[in-house]
Amino acid sequence: MMALSAKSVVCLCFLFSFCHVRGAHITLEMNKSILNLRKHYNISKAVEYNGQLVFFKEWIPEKLLEKRVFMRGVLETYEALINKMLKELPTPPPHTTGSEGGVGEGGAGDDVRTELNCILRMILKLKTIHYNEQDNLLSSLKKLMGIKMDSVTVQMKALRQLPWLYDEASDLTNEIQNRRRRRHAQRVKIHQRG
Amino acid sequence: MMALSAKSVVCLCFLFSFCHVRGAHITLEMNKSILNLRKHYNISKAVEYNGQLVFFKEWIPEKLLEKRVFMRGVLETYEALINKMLKELPTPPPHTTGSEGGVGEGGAGDDVRTELNCILRMILKLKTIHYNEQDNLLSSLKKLMGIKMDSVTVQMKALRQLPWLYDEASDLTNEIQNRRRRRHAQRVKIHQRG
Repeated sequence: MMALSAKSVVCLCFLFSFCHVRGAHITLEMNKSILNLRKHYNISKAVEYNGQLVFFKEWIPEKLLEKRVFMRGVLETYEALINKMLKELPTPPPHTTGSEGGVGEGGAGDDVRTELNCILRMILKLKTIHYNEQDNLLSSLKKLMGIKMDSVTVQMKALRQLPWLYDEASDLTNEIQNRRRRRHAQRVKIHQRG
Repeated sequence: MMALSAKSVVCLCFLFSFCHVRGAHITLEMNKSILNLRKHYNISKAVEYNGQLVFFKEWIPEKLLEKRVFMRGVLETYEALINKMLKELPTPPPHTTGSEGGVGEGGAGDDVRTELNCILRMILKLKTIHYNEQDNLLSSLKKLMGIKMDSVTVQMKALRQLPWLYDEASDLTNEIQNRRRRRHAQRVKIHQRG
């Protein structure tokens, strides 16, 4: 009986280490803020649960490095979203000196501002500590996507730059093939040594 | 003297393998097409050389994998640009059966179409053969950047999805740390064996 229960504990620990509880990284404060905001903005249940999502699971790439770039993108999207919501709030009344100041007309707006700032802080924390390396690529891609191709001037300037960029892109494929060859040779060497 | 010239040949070969000639990957046909198009659209020299570029060298990330994703983005930008230019051309006259058909009013437009198609073919070739793997990440990032955050509905739906995505992003950092630890242990093992 004892052996069985010890076995069960081991099994449970093993299971818990794999079956990760959803939302485990969200703090209680952040969760409360999300709930309060949803209560405050109060969109109809029919609209909220009409099946149209903003983010889709299928968008998350499988490869670890690509997933990291994508996740930085998700955090930046949320950062922009919260900043937009903060800007849309009515401007707070001028700061009063009394301790009762702010409770009144600005009260609800102030609460919303606090909740939004709480979420923003958590997003920025995760982004800055763990997703700092992905900054360059994402901002470069944003610049690419921002190119306006409507005028003939832009079209001709881009054509003039094509030989350089076509060359860079072709060179890169050679570089990767060389690197793969070197890695393969290294692996064979280690294998032979072993 | 013979030894010296043999040495020089080796040195020159060595130099050529490193000092890559710019534009070496561009075919003569593609180069001719670019020149012909620039001649056809004929924007003023003052505008063409006013120092405002479309793409900047600083946008290219340093890390190889990020560079690859960015370069796929560049090829896609050119693909969109050429397709846009093709669409802007006057529609060709209905196909005539005689061999002389098409030479006349549609002549210049047809030439431009041929040149644009030549460039498009080369871009698609490079993209399809060497940049196929980067497709998923780029299309996912484009979807992220296309999210319209104007309505309260989108804002609330995104907030509802935040715990899931925040969790995914946090989990990923753990996964990477574990992978680094495993790699480090493997390296130590190989080193000890050696």
